[in-house]
This record gives sequence, structure tokens and C-alpha cells, in this order.
Amino acid sequence: MNEISTRIRNKKLQAKVISAEEAVSFIQPGMNIGTSGFTPSGYPKVIPLALAQKIQQEKFKVNLWTGASVGKELDGVLAEVDGIAKRLPYQTNNAIRQAINNGQIQYTDLHLSHVAQMSRCGFLGGKVDIAIVEACAITEEGHIVPTTSVGNAASFVQSADKVIIELNVVQPLELEGMHDIFTPNEPPHRQPLLLTNVADRIGVPYIPCQVDKIAGIVISSIPDDVRPLAAVDDDAKAMTGHLIDFLQGEVKAGRLPANLLPLQSGVGSVANAVITGLVHSDFSGLTVYTEVIQDGMLDLIDAGKLLFASGTALTPSPAGLKRFYETIARYKSKIVLRPQEISNSPEIARRLGVIAMNTAIEFDIYGHVNSTHVMGSKIMNGIGGSGDFARNGYLTFFFSSSVAKGGAISCVVPMCAHIDHTEHDVDVFITEQGVADIRGLSPKERARKIINNCAHPDYRVQLLDYLKRAEEATGFAHTPHLLSEALSWHERFVRTGTMQVS
Amino acid sequence: MNEISTRIRNKKLQAKVISAEEAVSFIQPGMNIGTSGFTPSGYPKVIPLALAQKIQQEKFKVNLWTGASVGKELDGVLAEVDGIAKRLPYQTNNAIRQAINNGQIQYTDLHLSHVAQMSRCGFLGGKVDIAIVEACAITEEGHIVPTTSVGNAASFVQSADKVIIELNVVQPLELEGMHDIFTPNEPPHRQPLLLTNVADRIGVPYIPCQVDKIAGIVISSIPDDVRPLAAVDDDAKAMTGHLIDFLQGEVKAGRLPANLLPLQSGVGSVANAVITGLVHSDFSGLTVYTEVIQDGMLDLIDAGKLLFASGTALTPSPAGLKRFYETIARYKSKIVLRPQEISNSPEIARRLGVIAMNTAIEFDIYGHVNSTHVMGSKIMNGIGGSGDFARNGYLTFFFSSSVAKGGAISCVVPMCAHIDHTEHDVDVFITEQGVADIRGLSPKERARKIINNCAHPDYRVQLLDYLKRAEEATGFAHTPHLLSEALSWHERFVRTGTMQVS
Repeated sequence: MNEISTRIRNKKLQAKVISAEEAVSFIQPGMNIGTSGFTPSGYPKVIPLALAQKIQQEKFKVNLWTGASVGKELDGVLAEVDGIAKRLPYQTNNAIRQAINNGQIQYTDLHLSHVAQMSRCGFLGGKVDIAIVEACAITEEGHIVPTTSVGNAASFVQSADKVIIELNVVQPLELEGMHDIFTPNEPPHRQPLLLTNVADRIGVPYIPCQVDKIAGIVISSIPDDVRPLAAVDDDAKAMTGHLIDFLQGEVKAGRLPANLLPLQSGVGSVANAVITGLVHSDFSGLTVYTEVIQDGMLDLIDAGKLLFASGTALTPSPAGLKRFYETIARYKSKIVLRPQEISNSPEIARRLGVIAMNTAIEFDIYGHVNSTHVMGSKIMNGIGGSGDFARNGYLTFFFSSSVAKGGAISCVVPMCAHIDHTEHDVDVFITEQGVADIRGLSPKERARKIINNCAHPDYRVQLLDYLKRAEEATGFAHTPHLLSEALSWHERFVRTGTMQVS
Repeated sequence: MNEISTRIRNKKLQAKVISAEEAVSFIQPGMNIGTSGFTPSGYPKVIPLALAQKIQQEKFKVNLWTGASVGKELDGVLAEVDGIAKRLPYQTNNAIRQAINNGQIQYTDLHLSHVAQMSRCGFLGGKVDIAIVEACAITEEGHIVPTTSVGNAASFVQSADKVIIELNVVQPLELEGMHDIFTPNEPPHRQPLLLTNVADRIGVPYIPCQVDKIAGIVISSIPDDVRPLAAVDDDAKAMTGHLIDFLQGEVKAGRLPANLLPLQSGVGSVANAVITGLVHSDFSGLTVYTEVIQDGMLDLIDAGKLLFASGTALTPSPAGLKRFYETIARYKSKIVLRPQEISNSPEIARRLGVIAMNTAIEFDIYGHVNSTHVMGSKIMNGIGGSGDFARNGYLTFFFSSSVAKGGAISCVVPMCAHIDHTEHDVDVFITEQGVADIRGLSPKERARKIINNCAHPDYRVQLLDYLKRAEEATGFAHTPHLLSEALSWHERFVRTGTMQVS
């Protein structure tokens, strides 16, 4: 049996192998294209590259729905040819970000757990017209074995009239069996998600698909465009230390079990540093229930400290991915990839009691968090899954350095210029300066703790001064604000390049 | 058998009947007092009245934890004697509100589904010291049969060292059997909540309590201080009409079943008007999964249009309560009262697919909602359960009149001065002006729809002008804002008494 027949196990489907150019002939202007992919993992590559060429010649746009951010061969090339009308639900690509912030692309920034249901139920402007899914194999029945991510692929396949599969022969066949695919019924026919342990399986190891829906199969050999992690800097080290101390205190106080509760951690270098930090801690018997499995979790498995990790995407650094591919058998029994509707499910996050750890762009003295916007107007990436976990976690942390841009920006401000998580959703803030445990506190109590424990010393006096004057001006109201000054720190930065008063 | 022995079915406990004055002798300064009560229903009355007298003499404070707001015999009298140090998780009483907004009381405004777990796990500053629970009966085993609400009573009883029961003989014994009490285990031992239909029962009809924990029983005959509903005004009528049209459109489009999905509705006159409006619609076979059961739901039952209502409190108007008491048998098989951890559970709201309908103080052109603060600093009531339902509902509505204070305040503003629900959490806004369905839209698309469909005509030009200038100033950024003007409408109101430009 050759490579292709090993991977396409249905004879009829073997005859459906087509070129990327043929595949994109199915795509019409204005269509809703739903793809696999979550972070630069498991997204289609050769078809979007061909689509970009077609768009460059024929000048049209499509709507692009994915799991989250995807690699440059999808988001990057389509943005560069101005081929996207609407993009959802998350992005991290420079070209897309620029096009969103100049009005070229309309972007809908959604909770990642919400997208599958909204897309199936026709809440996002029609349904998916064509689903494009990266696969490492197709079963005899036409079912699709995903690769390094699941995202919304199962729901997009279910809704779409046509499915195009990008069969990626550089994604190892050993990935088969790592997925657990379950798509809930819509209300009023929905049943409980019977998952009570991070390692539980409630579905099947493939994306169910009728053979007849598959319009074509395109062979790909482009690897995931995973990115190297930034070096762990001093701030990340300090935050990790604070976190570990805090968690130890919670265990001691009887508010957490000795092996903690399932860990969720956002994507990126700080998040990875925090997880890596646990390798050198005394914690063991850990579990992970998160979106994205990064290098730190592989380190924890290697160190014998992580029993099991559940996610929707496997996105290590290039070195981490190499390590994973080389010793896949070692990791396979300890990792499962699920649809993001399940990995980010409020129902499960709350039941398991996840420890939610996400990063903020800024937070304010009363505990509101900005995860998405720079100076109020420009989007950075999006809310991602942070809201799914922060709202429902047993214990919710937000991390940030206390300052950015060499001290010109205070990440602790009087009022966030955009709010993605409210005062009702956060338990603990951690910066390199320290920890503010705001559980059970009133806004004015929170403010003093956040300023004194988390703000940079260069901004503390200024923040305390704002608080004091706001208290006096409002007669010690519940959440004292000076409306004319609340956003003045951001204004000052835009005007002068620093939040510091000269 | 006399009244008392019918209601106190354990002989040993019959000897524990004490006076309210004796009961409050257990209460020490600084204690965390957890009470029953959710809205002015089912809260203790004679014990807090006695506590207020003791506090007036001895000058001390306690922390008061309840289900939500409670009646004047608890919140009002304790605030008036300055007896509350910390109050959580919700309030609507004038005296409390004033004390919160002058710094006298520290108030922690929490999602109502979060409180029980946070209190059991010691996240709110210690645990409940004494639970005070209104009951209509105590079983042979010492279990407590609640009255017109459940709230957090079951969790407070579970955590507390001591329980004091206020046996209210004017609460009809026929309430027995209307409750379904279930308290989940803490993670990692939590199991799925196996409730798939609004009428399902997963618990027991009483609050489990060990006989030995009961420190005393005080007899009460003070009725719930329920309040009359305001007359349904023209705005509420118009909003109800818009809602019914919109729901009919969704059914026609195949996005909702003909009998809709379980309805959740906030508390108050607008919410009640909306529910009452359904009585005169063509919808039937309806169900309710909400916090508070108000008059409108009794009307729907009477009209044969409501199959079943699940809530955590039964709070009709005085006339509605009289009707309920008089014909309790008619309603009893169609109503269940649950702990608020279950009535407001994200897991269940999402599974059932509730239609979430809540009122806003204001919302902004990009879809953020302020549910709690007046002009940014002063708290009105609190977030209540709106976040539990809005985030997790199948379809999420927020209602508001387009203007307040005779037109001096626009309830649609450039930027909310406080944010409780973010742009990621709302599907549809309704004012008396019309409907803005913002599902799947980008912020700039939302802005035009919200301004044109929902803002008052007197403010539309001003809002469109803000949007246009913000777009130009930011180069059509994702969420265009003019930082120096974003809160200027609120500033202007504080300064001049109106948001209108003179």
C-alpha cells in the first residue's frame, strides 16, 4: 500500500484527489469558508495559497471562519491579497491585524466556546458554505482524522454543503487516536457533557463526515508554521515565582488539593514560562485542561509531573514539535485534542474547577481587564478563550508585566480603555511586582491592593493620587472615578509617547 | 397537633424554640452571617429586627451574605443602624445603596451563580459563621423546608457552624414539595448536573441539616415585603412588541423552535411586562428557567401557555402573592425553586439554551453593557444573574429605554462609564425605538445598527458624528474611540444635568 492509500482508505475517495487549483474552483465570492486550524496548527495551507492566487486574479472576497488564529499560509496570504470580507473568531497575524485596524476587514471577536454553536445555528450570517479541513487520514467511511488541532472543524464539516480535505502527508499518521470528537445536539435536545476527568473520552477519534459531502482531496506537505518561543525574561520568572508561592499558600489553607486542579493557560511566552516554572516546583500529579498544548506541558510530562493534558491544539515551538513527532508514542497516551466547544466549555471548566491563567494587555485599579485593544481603539489579537475560562474557573488569574514600552506604559491604569473581563470575573492579579488577591473585596479595597502589590513603583503614587481624588470627588462612591481623567493616561500616551506625567 | 408541632416535626427541636433576642446572642461582632432570601422573598425578618436593636445598643458590625437583594427587615434595618461591614452579593435597598456609595459599607458585587461555591470554599473572607434561614417547616431529621426562595441557603447551612431557623407560620405549609435542593461537590469531585428539562428534579425537597447544628428556632409571622409592580408604560409595551416580532422571525428562520426555548427574564417592571406580553402572543407550550418568578409567569400559567417555570425565588406583587397563596395547588405542579447555583448555572443555561432577557442601565455603540453604575461611580443594584444568563444563553437580549430622566440621559452612549457585559456577550439590543441584532457583526457594523435602530432620534446625529470622527481619527481602527470624548457625555450630564449639547 502506498502512502496515499494508507491515508485515504476509501477507494471511491482515492479518485477524488484533485489539485489545489481545482479545489478553489468550488469557492465563490462572498462564501463563508470554515476551516480547521487553531493557532498555527492543523490549518489548511495549499488550498488557501491557491485561493490567494485566484483572488489576486479575479478580485473577490470571502468570509473566513476558523478555530482561532491560524498560520501565514491562510490568514497572511488572504489578507495580503485583500481577499477577506469578514474574519472570525480570533487572529494574531500582522497582515490581518493591520487590515482590521484600517477598516479593510470586518472582524468579529468571539468567545472561542461560542463559535461552533453560533455557526451551526446560523447566527453568524448564514452557514458555512465550504469547510476546508486538514487531515492526516480519511477512514473507509469518509470520516476525517484531524492533525495537530481540532478547533471548529467538526462543526464546520457538519454544517457545510461541501467539504474539501487537505491531506497533509507530513503530519504523522500516529496522530490518529489522539482526538476525541463530540458535537452536542442543539437545545432543546442537548444532553450533559459526561466528562468528569481531563482524560475522559466522550466522542469518536475522527470528524464524522458523509463520503458524498467530500468534494475533493488535495495533497499537502507543508508543515505547521509554528513559532519559536521568546526567551523567558525576568518578569516572567518573577510572575512564575509569585504564582507558585500563591498556589502553595492555597494548598496550605485547604483551598486547593495538593496536586492542584486542572491547569488552563493562555497562549504565548509568558503562559509557557508559567507552565515551565511548574517543572521546577514541588507540585506533581498535575493535569491540564486547556486550549493549546505548548512546550512547557511536554516538559511537565517528561518530568513525570503531568498525568494528562487535554486541549484543542498542539502548538509547541519548532523544537518542541520536532521532539513531539520523534517520540510521539511517549506523549500519545497523555494528550487528547477536542473540539474547542468542549475544550473551552463553561460546563466542563466549572465542573473540573480549572485554574485559569491568562495574560492581560492592561487591567485597572478596580479589577477590569483589557485583553484585546491597544489604547482603546486598535485590536491586538482578540479575547480568545480567556473569557470561557476566567468566568468559569475555580480560581482565575490574570498576568501582566506592570509596565510596557520600557516603562512608558503602565499596565495598571485608572480605567481600562477597553474591557473584556469585568470586575466580576477575576480572583487574582500577578505582575512581576507581586500578587493582588482580590477575592471577596469591594472595588475600593481592590484598588489599594492592586496598586500596592501589582503596579510599578514609578506609577504607584500617581495611581493612589487618582484613587484618593476620585474618592473625595464622588463622596466615596462604590467605584470612584473622575470621568474627565479616567482615560487620560491613555490619551497622554497617544499624545506624548508616555503615560508618565512630565 | 398544634401549628408548631406540625411545622417542627422533631421533638428535640420543639424545645429549641427561642426568642429573637436569644437568637441574636449567638451573633458576635465581625461574624459572617449567611441568610436565606432572594429578592424580598424567603429572607429572615424577626431575627434581623432583633439584631438591629442589639447593634444599636452595642455598636458593632457583621458581614451580611444573602442570595440577592432581600427585604427591608434585613437589609434596611441593618444598614440604618450601621451594622454591616461587608455586604454581598446583590442589593436593591435604598439605605444599603446609600451606605455603599458613601463608603460606609464595603460591597462585593458577584455573579449570583458564583457565590455558593466561593462561600463554601472560603474565597470570601472566611466561611459562614452563622446561617439564618426562613423555613416553613423542619422535618423529623432536622432538614429545613424553605419558603418562597432558596438562594444560597443550602450552601450557607452546609458551611455554617451554627444554624438559626426562623419558622414563618404565615408562609403556607403547601410550599413544601416545591423545592429541589442540590449542592454539588467541590472539584475535583464534581459530577454533571443531570438536568435536561426545566421540570427535572435532581435533589431533595428540603435543605439537608444535622439536628445538632440547629442552635435555635424563632417563630415569625411577618410576610414577605413584596412590592407592587409599576404600571406597564409605553416604552415597555413597545419593547415587548419588538421582542415578540423578533422571536417570530427567528422561529420562521428556523433558528428557534415554535415553542421557543426556556425563557429567563430579569427582575422588575420591564422584565415582567415582557413576560406578560407573551400572554397575548401566539406562543404556547413555553417554559421558564430563570431566577425570579413574577406575576407575568403566573399569568402565563393561567393562560395555559406556560408548561413549567423553574426559579430560585417566587416574588410576585402583593396581589400576585395573594393569588398564588389562594390557589397554590394550581401552581405547585408547575413551579420548582432551586438553589441559585443551579437556577443560574452556566452549565444548565447553555444546555437548555435559555433565551436571556435582561435590562441595562446603558449600552454603548459597540455593544458593551452597563448594568450596575450610574455615571461610572455610584452603584445602583448589582450585576445579579444577568452575567450568568447573558454569557451562556442561546440568544441574549438586553432591554433599555433609549433615554432616561425625560430625555436628559441617552441610554445609548459612545462608551459605557462602567462595563458589566462586554461586546462578546450580547446578541440583540431592544429599546422602544427598535431592535439591533448584532450577531456576527464587527464593532463598526454594530455601531451603525445600534445607533440607527435603538438610539433616541434626539441623540442619533450626535452619536453618528462621534462614530464618524472616531473612525477618521483612528484610521478606521477596529473599535474607533476618541479617548478625550468617550466619557464626555456622562461628564456633561454631571456638570449640566443633561447629555444634550446646549
